[in-house]
Order: sequence, then structure tokens, then C-alpha cells
Amino acid sequence: MNQPTPSQPRPSSPDELFGAACGHARRTAVLGSVEAVLGWDEQTMLPPAAAAHRADQAAEMAAIVHRQRTLPEQADRLERLAGSSLATAGTPEQRATIRLLKSDVEKQARLPQRLVEELARAAVEGQQAWVAARASSSWEGLRPHLVRMFALKREQAACQRPDLDPYDALLDDYEPGARWRGVAERFALLREVIVPLVQACIGSSRRPDDGLFSQRVYPVDAQQAFVREVAKRIGFDFNRGRLDTTAHPFCTSLGPNDCRITTRWNDRFLPTALFGVLHEAGHGLYEQGLPREWYGLPPGESASLGIHESQSRLWENSIGRSRPFWNWCLPLAKAAFPQALGEVGVEEFHDALMVVRPSFIRVEADEVTYNLHVMLRFDLERAVVHGELAVDDLPDAWNERFERDFGMRPPDNAHGVLQDIHWSAGLIGYFPTYTLGTMFASQLLAAIRRAIPDLDAGLATGRFDELLGWLRREVHAEGRMLESEPLIERVTGMPVSGTWLAESLRERYGRAYGL
Amino acid sequence: MNQPTPSQPRPSSPDELFGAACGHARRTAVLGSVEAVLGWDEQTMLPPAAAAHRADQAAEMAAIVHRQRTLPEQADRLERLAGSSLATAGTPEQRATIRLLKSDVEKQARLPQRLVEELARAAVEGQQAWVAARASSSWEGLRPHLVRMFALKREQAACQRPDLDPYDALLDDYEPGARWRGVAERFALLREVIVPLVQACIGSSRRPDDGLFSQRVYPVDAQQAFVREVAKRIGFDFNRGRLDTTAHPFCTSLGPNDCRITTRWNDRFLPTALFGVLHEAGHGLYEQGLPREWYGLPPGESASLGIHESQSRLWENSIGRSRPFWNWCLPLAKAAFPQALGEVGVEEFHDALMVVRPSFIRVEADEVTYNLHVMLRFDLERAVVHGELAVDDLPDAWNERFERDFGMRPPDNAHGVLQDIHWSAGLIGYFPTYTLGTMFASQLLAAIRRAIPDLDAGLATGRFDELLGWLRREVHAEGRMLESEPLIERVTGMPVSGTWLAESLRERYGRAYGL
Repeated sequence: MNQPTPSQPRPSSPDELFGAACGHARRTAVLGSVEAVLGWDEQTMLPPAAAAHRADQAAEMAAIVHRQRTLPEQADRLERLAGSSLATAGTPEQRATIRLLKSDVEKQARLPQRLVEELARAAVEGQQAWVAARASSSWEGLRPHLVRMFALKREQAACQRPDLDPYDALLDDYEPGARWRGVAERFALLREVIVPLVQACIGSSRRPDDGLFSQRVYPVDAQQAFVREVAKRIGFDFNRGRLDTTAHPFCTSLGPNDCRITTRWNDRFLPTALFGVLHEAGHGLYEQGLPREWYGLPPGESASLGIHESQSRLWENSIGRSRPFWNWCLPLAKAAFPQALGEVGVEEFHDALMVVRPSFIRVEADEVTYNLHVMLRFDLERAVVHGELAVDDLPDAWNERFERDFGMRPPDNAHGVLQDIHWSAGLIGYFPTYTLGTMFASQLLAAIRRAIPDLDAGLATGRFDELLGWLRREVHAEGRMLESEPLIERVTGMPVSGTWLAESLRERYGRAYGL
Repeated sequence: MNQPTPSQPRPSSPDELFGAACGHARRTAVLGSVEAVLGWDEQTMLPPAAAAHRADQAAEMAAIVHRQRTLPEQADRLERLAGSSLATAGTPEQRATIRLLKSDVEKQARLPQRLVEELARAAVEGQQAWVAARASSSWEGLRPHLVRMFALKREQAACQRPDLDPYDALLDDYEPGARWRGVAERFALLREVIVPLVQACIGSSRRPDDGLFSQRVYPVDAQQAFVREVAKRIGFDFNRGRLDTTAHPFCTSLGPNDCRITTRWNDRFLPTALFGVLHEAGHGLYEQGLPREWYGLPPGESASLGIHESQSRLWENSIGRSRPFWNWCLPLAKAAFPQALGEVGVEEFHDALMVVRPSFIRVEADEVTYNLHVMLRFDLERAVVHGELAVDDLPDAWNERFERDFGMRPPDNAHGVLQDIHWSAGLIGYFPTYTLGTMFASQLLAAIRRAIPDLDAGLATGRFDELLGWLRREVHAEGRMLESEPLIERVTGMPVSGTWLAESLRERYGRAYGL
């Protein structure tokens, strides 16, 4: 399996070559999915003392997967396929598969084996250090891990894409085709709407009140049953997935029929789990909607993290915070939490979802200020990668920028630079995809409203099949055939822009705050 | 990592060779532990539709591990080490490592890669089929999987140990050095005590009553906290392990600091979880007591399944069903289950643990009849492997033998041939180690009583450190340096025999039943 069977003749027709290349890529994907099992287990199940061994396991697997990915026989097959008739006259899936497998292999082949192993090990060790450092708000506990990780990632950038700016090289792993200058421009335009909107909300005399969430008790076992039911009703298939508990909610696929989402629970604040699960289930619906017959190959892969995030944000915000959705869902919520919600009307409930309030923790932020959290991280990580900011200076830089954007200073590093797992896990260049995806979601929703004029009537009666069907057909079925911007442009018929997000926020929150 | 780095000179001194061989074996063990992660997750977490992909993952990993294990460079190193001074004048650990790594590699190398992959795949598919077949009591659902599995295991036996009887070749995987004729002789002697003892118990006018378990409610959440506390108090380290829920309780190590035990819960029968966890924690204490510095090498491995079972049975039966243990533990149980146990005295409680009652399900059997369940499976699987019994005839053969031994016939196959996961998972030759281990446990306890005269006083006050210290020192620290029989003989100073088990059962149950 590792090596081609020697007795087999070297395949020569383009179709044979294509079959052999896909077979190898699929088997490599199966091994890659074993890494996903290790990762999921690490986040949800790992006993405290087991982290060092998990790092060994991750490093061994990373080395094996890397070797499989960069096997010279596979590179040779792809080279020959790229010059074959299939590369120009094959089906769209075949052409995309040849092109993307080839560039993936070339990119991987530029990474030394040692670096691959070290990155895998540093990610596990960094994440475990992060858990302890955040718990004790100790910057010193994480600092050396971040120094090491940023250095490794800069090395990775230089090896992997010597043709690109180092931050772009990392960003390209998560959002193929995106470049930091373009992202920065879009974010700047968005800031011009969001910063004054936040100020206006804070200064308004009409203020939505979320006391019905923050001042009432929502028993965790009732939450578990409720959010599971909601996830199921919007279409998440528990026959092909799970919902578990973690400190940091996420979604991961361990195989084509094994999508796992997680959340955390707060019995004094229902939105934590509710919107956490709507968000992760949105990711999960995308994973469950990818073409299974192309598993392990580009037509069966997600297009980018931004597209992934567009799906999660769509369900979390565009649907989950809409009035029609709660016309349907509030009775379910009342049945689950009769004590807390017995007397609440849909107007009052929906109002409570529209609170804008600057806060320290990104994953608990409201829909509007959330994007300021993302921009802060994007600017800081870019500055570190570009050598404009030292890792040692991150806590101060964070706190100063936070104060400037939010008007308050984090009381400690746990509420500041230590709050997110990403950097310690090596996910650098990842943050901007959150807001890119949120922009995509708003643009998609506009297109969906054109395609499904009675969308709200469906939401108000708990029918999500038409919406999900559209997403499946227009987005999920496309896999990774297009990069995110061409995909969004094709699906929506409009150039990518933050306008829809800006408009949506201004309109909905303007109404909620009587602006 | 897969291949030795070409630029490195071929190591030549025995110490260098030994270091290289151990390094390779350890890295292979790390990969093997990834297989354990897949297995644990499969049993505890896998979404229903994900089984096929898990089989793909297991097959890919089995192939990679097998290739690592049988790498010609490693075989060459071990060949040279076997002829070196270390093989005769090294430390005992070095000598055992050389000898056992060499025989392991040779055994593995006799298995074709195809067979290894097919066995891994058949095990996952068989286990998933078993879950469904047992749930619907459908023999036909499992039959083709067992036909395939027994055929594969016979092929494995023939390849792996052509020098041995085929059943012995399989048995030797679990209990190195054991041979079926010797096992059959020991079991026959034990039957001579157990069969009349069961008859005498059933016919006795004094009968212990376990109504306090079967007729009262033990809430599952209270059980979870209680058994976790008990496992912790006897020494199971939750910093290096976990306790989870499964249909079929087990213990597995995912790494040197990652031992996972599972149980099931029955709110109408406390002993299910209580003795399940004492049993699995006994396995876990052994795993946690193996020399970590030798992880992945024979001195850091368990000696055999029989020795493993001796540890679980010791804690479950010799300790967990003893009167002194309950002098300490009953107050804890009363605090956990005040409704069920508020008025119960230690005499009455202990009495309820001593019920002998023929029943259909092995894992719910009492301590005495349990061994008859094992002997039945041993005789049947041996007959199939020897070609004396067809897989198709297993259900009838099971039911007839069961009726002969237990005086009743299983009402359906779920209560008969379908109850155990082992055959569908390829664990053939495994069953006899349950009763061998139980024999070892009784023999060990006799030695422990000589070494720790005030053992009962310790148990009665919840002090297990002296007992655990003895096990750690005498058994756990030995790793796989000796086969089970020489190990038991050295530790106890007596030849291996079923006498201690027979005597212990006769004495304790004779007392409980007034015989």
C-alpha cells in the first residue's frame, strides 16, 4: 500500500493513471482521517498525563501521511496526467482533481519531513500547554510554545510557498487564493460600518435586554436534549455524526460518515450552547453534504475555511437569529425550559438575541463586535509573521488594541491573548476566514432570498429542506472545484463584497436599537 | 522514520544495534497505539454509519504497522543482536528484549500483508455486524462474518506458527507458552469441583439472597460517582486514564499514560457496574504499573492475557467480594445509595454478593458458574478451529452444551452464541485466558496472604497500598520478561494449579450456602 506493488505494470493510459492517482490519494486521505481521530480524541477525551504520548502519535502519523502524500510515484503520475488529454478534455471533476492533487503534492513535497513531524508535535504540546496556561492566566506558560510555533510556521511558509509573502503562504492553506492585502482592505471597509454601529448601539436609549438568558437557569441536561433536537431538525444527521462536550467548540470529520461537533454548556446563559451548536452544525451540514463518492479527492473536499464559515454563520446568525426561525423554535424552547421561558413571547425572545455588548471573549461575542475580535487577531498575527511584532510583545499589543477597539482593557491574559487555542495549535492565518465567511454568508443569504422567495415561511414552520437543498446543490456539491471567491461569485451572481454583511448588520441592529 | 535514514552509518556495536532496534520497536509501538485509539473510539463513540470507513482506517493502519514490524532492517538488527554478546551477557531486560523482539518479528513476517489487512477489516466489520445481530438476535446476520473470520484465523495460525497445532498457534498469541491439551486438563479438574458445587448450592436450603440488588433502584448518576471513587481508592489513576460507557466493558491502553476502562450501567442491578469497574480497574492497575521506561518493548509489556486477567479477577473477586473490603466500602455505598442501602448491614450485603445462580450471559454470571461459560466457549472454538465443528452448527452446539452444563436452554441466540463480541472481533483462543487468569488470581492471593499477614485489616480500612505495592513489585514490574506459568511459579513459589481456585470457591461458597 505504501509502495506500488512491484509486480503490477506501470499504468499508462490516462484513465489507468487517473485511477491509480485517485486510489493513492484516497488511501492517503484515509490515513489523514486517522490523524483527525487523534485530534478529536485529544480535544474531548485525553487524560491529562497522556499529552506527551499523543504528541508522539501525532508526529509519527504526520510523518507517515506526509510520506504518502509526497510519494515520488504519485508525483510522477500527476506529472504525466497533467500532460495528458484528461487534463484538458476530462470532466470538470477530473480536471480539478489533476490540477489540485498536483499542486497539493508539490506544496507538500517542499516541506522537509523533520518540519512536518515537528509541527505536529508542537501543535499537540502547544495545545496542552494552552489549556494549562489559560486556566492559570499564565502568559509565561504559553510564551515559549508560541515562540516555537511562530518560528516553525515562518519556516513552513518559506518552504511551502517561496513565491508568496509569508503570511499569504499560511493564509493560502486555509483560504486558497486569498491574499492579506485584499483581506485587510475588506476589513477596513467593514470597520467603517461596524465601529460606528457599535458606538451607536451603546449610546442608544432603546436597548434590547438579554436578561432572560443571563438571569435565568437553563439546566444542562435540558439544553443537551434541546440543542440536539434543533441540530437534528435543521438537518444534521446523527447517524453520521456526534455531539460532544469540549472547552473550545469545534467541528471535525473523522471520515465521510463521521462528522463530530462539540459545544460547551452554561446553565446561566443558553446562547453559549444554542448558537455554538447551530454554528458547528452548520459546519457539519457542509461536511455531510460533500459528495461522498469523491471522498479524499478535491471534488469531495470543502472549498476553504471561509466557505466552511459561511455555512456555520448562515445557520447561526442569518437563520438562528431571525424572527421567523423563533416563531417555529420558541415553542420547542419553552417545552425544554418551562421555568425560564414559560411566559416569554417571540418578540421579547428575539429582542434578547440582538444585544450588542463589547466583551472580552471572542467565542461569546455578539454578532457585531465579533468581527472586531477577528480583525484584532488578524492584524497581530500578520505583524508577528512579518517580523513587525515580537511574540513577547503580544500581550501588551493585544491589550492596547483591545482597549482602542472595545473601550476596555482585559483584566488578565486569560481574557486577552490566552483565550484562543489557534496560535498554540499552529493555526496561523486562520482567523481572517471567520469574518470572510461571515461576509460570504450574508452574500449567500441575499442570493437564497432571491431563489426562495418564501424562505421565511419555511423557517417559521420548521421546514429547512428547501434551504438545505439549495446549499447542498449550489455550495456543498461543488466540493473544492472552485476557490472561495469564484464560487461565491458564481453562486450569487455578484462580485464578493462585505456590503451585504455591513447592510445586514446596520439594518437588523439599527432596527433592534431604534437607530 | 519508515526507512532508516540512508546517510546514517549502519550501527555496528551491540549497544548501538540495541539502541537502534529498541528505537524502531518503540516507534512501531507508538503506531500500534494509534490502532488502539481507533479501537477504543470504535467501541465507545462511533456513529452508526461510520463503520465502513473505520474498517478502512483499521486496515490501512494494520498494514502500516505490520510493515514497520517486519522491516528487513529490523530483522537484520535482531539477527545480529541474537549473535552478539548482549544476547548472553546483557542485563535480563536486554536479553529478554532481544529474544522476544526477534521471535515477534519472525512471527509477524510469516503473515502476508494481505492477510493482516483483511483480518483488521474483518474485525471491524464483524464487530459492527455483531452489534446489529445481537440486538435482533439474528444468527444469520453474524454467520457469514464468523465463517470468514474463522477461515482467516485458521490461515493466520497456519502462516504464523506452522510448527504448532492451529488452535495452539492462536492461543499462543494471548497466552504465550500455553497449549490447549494442558488447558483442557486443568479445566477438566476444575469442572470436577465446580459442577458438584453449583448443584450443591442450587439444592441447598440456605440460599444467599441478592434481592437488595435486584429489587432496589440504584440511580445511574450515583453509580457513576460511586464506582469512580472506588476505582480511585484502589489506586486507578484518572490522571492517566478514563472511565466510559460501552455495551461490552473492556480495558485498553492508548499509551503509557492513557489507560481507558469502560462499563455499562443498570439501575436495577448495582453489581453490573460495580464489579465491572473493579474488574476493568484491575486490568488498568496492571497497565498503569508496567515499567514506563520500557514502553513499547517486552519489559514494558504485559506478560499475557492470563496474567492480565489474574489482576482483574483479584480485584473483582478476591478483594471485591471479600467481607473486609465491604467493612470499609459499605459506608461509601450507603452514602451513594441511601434509599437502597440505608438499612443494610455488612453481613446482609456481603451475603448478597455470594449468590450462585445459573444464567445465560457470561459477563453477568456469578463467580462460580462463570468458569463453565468459559469452558463451553473454549471447547466450541477449539472444535471449530480443529475442523470438528462447522461454524453453521455453532448455535445448536452452544445450546446443547449449555443445557447440559446449566440445566436450561437459551431462549434465543442473543442469550446464547451471539452474546460475546470475541469471535466476531477475531479474538479466537482468547476465552480460556479468563479462567486461567482466575486460577492465577487465587494462587497469587495465597502468596499475598503469606507476604501480608494483615491484608484483611488493610482492606477493612480502605488501605490498598501494601497490596498494590506487592502486585506492582512482583507482577507488574516484571513486564513480559517471563511467560505466565514461570512468572506465577516464581512469584508464588508453587507450581501452577487450579487447586487454589477450587479450594477458594468450595470454601467461600460452601460457607455462604451452609454446605
